[in-house]
Amino acid sequence: MNIRSLKFDGKALHIVDQRCLPFDVIDVICSNEQEVWEAIKLMKIRGAPAIGVAAAYGMNLGVKDFSGNKEEFFKKLKEVKDYLNSARPTAVNLKWATQRIFSYARKHAEQSLDEIKQEILVEAQRIEEEDIDTNFRIGEFGSALFKENDTIMTICNSGALATAGYGTAFGVIRRSFEKYTGIKAIALETRPYLQGARLTAFELKELGIPFHLITDNMAGFIVSKGLVNGIVVGADRIATNGDTANKVGTYTLAVLANYHKIPFYVAAPISTIDPHIESGNDIPIEERDPEEVTHCGGKRIAPEGIKVYNPSFDLTPNVLINAIITEKGILRQPFKESIKEILKNN
Amino acid sequence: MNIRSLKFDGKALHIVDQRCLPFDVIDVICSNEQEVWEAIKLMKIRGAPAIGVAAAYGMNLGVKDFSGNKEEFFKKLKEVKDYLNSARPTAVNLKWATQRIFSYARKHAEQSLDEIKQEILVEAQRIEEEDIDTNFRIGEFGSALFKENDTIMTICNSGALATAGYGTAFGVIRRSFEKYTGIKAIALETRPYLQGARLTAFELKELGIPFHLITDNMAGFIVSKGLVNGIVVGADRIATNGDTANKVGTYTLAVLANYHKIPFYVAAPISTIDPHIESGNDIPIEERDPEEVTHCGGKRIAPEGIKVYNPSFDLTPNVLINAIITEKGILRQPFKESIKEILKNN
Repeated sequence: MNIRSLKFDGKALHIVDQRCLPFDVIDVICSNEQEVWEAIKLMKIRGAPAIGVAAAYGMNLGVKDFSGNKEEFFKKLKEVKDYLNSARPTAVNLKWATQRIFSYARKHAEQSLDEIKQEILVEAQRIEEEDIDTNFRIGEFGSALFKENDTIMTICNSGALATAGYGTAFGVIRRSFEKYTGIKAIALETRPYLQGARLTAFELKELGIPFHLITDNMAGFIVSKGLVNGIVVGADRIATNGDTANKVGTYTLAVLANYHKIPFYVAAPISTIDPHIESGNDIPIEERDPEEVTHCGGKRIAPEGIKVYNPSFDLTPNVLINAIITEKGILRQPFKESIKEILKNN
Repeated sequence: MNIRSLKFDGKALHIVDQRCLPFDVIDVICSNEQEVWEAIKLMKIRGAPAIGVAAAYGMNLGVKDFSGNKEEFFKKLKEVKDYLNSARPTAVNLKWATQRIFSYARKHAEQSLDEIKQEILVEAQRIEEEDIDTNFRIGEFGSALFKENDTIMTICNSGALATAGYGTAFGVIRRSFEKYTGIKAIALETRPYLQGARLTAFELKELGIPFHLITDNMAGFIVSKGLVNGIVVGADRIATNGDTANKVGTYTLAVLANYHKIPFYVAAPISTIDPHIESGNDIPIEERDPEEVTHCGGKRIAPEGIKVYNPSFDLTPNVLINAIITEKGILRQPFKESIKEILKNN
């Protein structure tokens, strides 16, 4: 796998424009916080962990040329944080990463401005490195839930492209494939943005993992035929009771898994858990541009002048989730307690 | 609504190429049975009732210039029947219509060849007229299941374009809209062929029925928000126990309706019931060209050289169906008995 979602060259953040994959590999260079904001907003980069890492570098880019006193510096840093957070409302990793940078800078407030700037960059790099390590651990823990010859279904893209590397839910499939023979995947195309057809199919193909691509509405039939041993999905935000916001379509898969008594797993770093949100009802759901629904692959597919719904995410209640796979281990029901425990030790 | 799915001008069958709607209205002229076969195969015309009517006219076109003795004539007529039936395997209306023409011709075997040919044409026209009448009745019976301010969800297209006119499941929405205030619809786009986005959205817009278009994977979230009062879908084949084959994605909607305790209805003419099929497991499911999945709106959306599943239909077991709406009334559980009763009186 040669393509990485992002790379910081010391001066600018390079992002592979995921809107053009897998057909064109376009390097987007973000030299300031506005360009990072736009890359996140327009989904040139997407995937909760990846936008967290991008935003961390965005914090660096937002203040690296700042000159003034320290009070002004921290005011500016807070502005950059709030600005980057506004790019997408649902994924909590974005807020988590910018807050982590901000708090870390604050902790070094006694040092010189240049030193604080340097610390910010180091912390952003640390977030990136930790994310890769986190994904390996998620893959390792999650793969214990599968076995030889299993077929694993997933939606959207939670692979190397959605993270700093390796992947979350995708990492579970990947690690299972590395460990067991006969592992196969089923990827949902994931309308309207087609992250499954464009990105997950691309990553699965690159890694040589056998898979079938399906349209989203085929999931029920494929599950009903007994072709799926388990479903694993990523997450954009998890409430402290385990309710999970993830790519729209996730909830339907959870209901199907429940009806067919196959396991349904969420795989995400602990940073995806929002300690301030007690239940899924409090998670804001981003409504995106209607054109994503009325168009496909850049081409209009529906009559003009019609109304659409376009929630980018949906909510899966904790009762439909068999386990949440994190880098610290597998959380089980009741999630309210297992999440409390893991946040306490984090 | 000016656009009709088909029209016979006495010499040829005119079909609106549904692959090009709603953007281009292209008149396809079928002058022989091969052209009718191709129109059905390539989905220039689709929808179980509409392809039944088209095939009935195809029977006429297949023998209208035949000259020879009667034995040869009926041999040819049977060949045309088997040939047309081969265009699509799942929809039973196709076989029902060609068989009806064949049996009717047989009944008139004592008459002259010209007279038999004339009878075939008249019977095809009768099938067309009956289908419109059948749809009105389905709409009337089905609308009794809804009330003021209801929002009705549907998949695929079962409207005027899928029939000789008015629509089956769509007809239920249409008649409800005519009878009650505040009726709204939610149309699933219905990948891979986008009959919902292209055809149902077009018909709803033309009729002024308020609606939202959604991608297929949004159905669960929309239902979970309490935005849907009932789901109504068409059918391509119904077994004598009520199991129903319909556009892929239907089964998932039935599971969602079951989980959320909202009613799930199938609306179809009695000709959709296959008296020779006892359960859904015996209904052949058409697997279509992989390019329908790897492409959208004519554009490639997935990497090359990958595997896909592309079942055109799925199976909904009778236990998930609250009622089957026919032109003779509403069938309820146990369907094995209510269907037996209605076939007996048909």
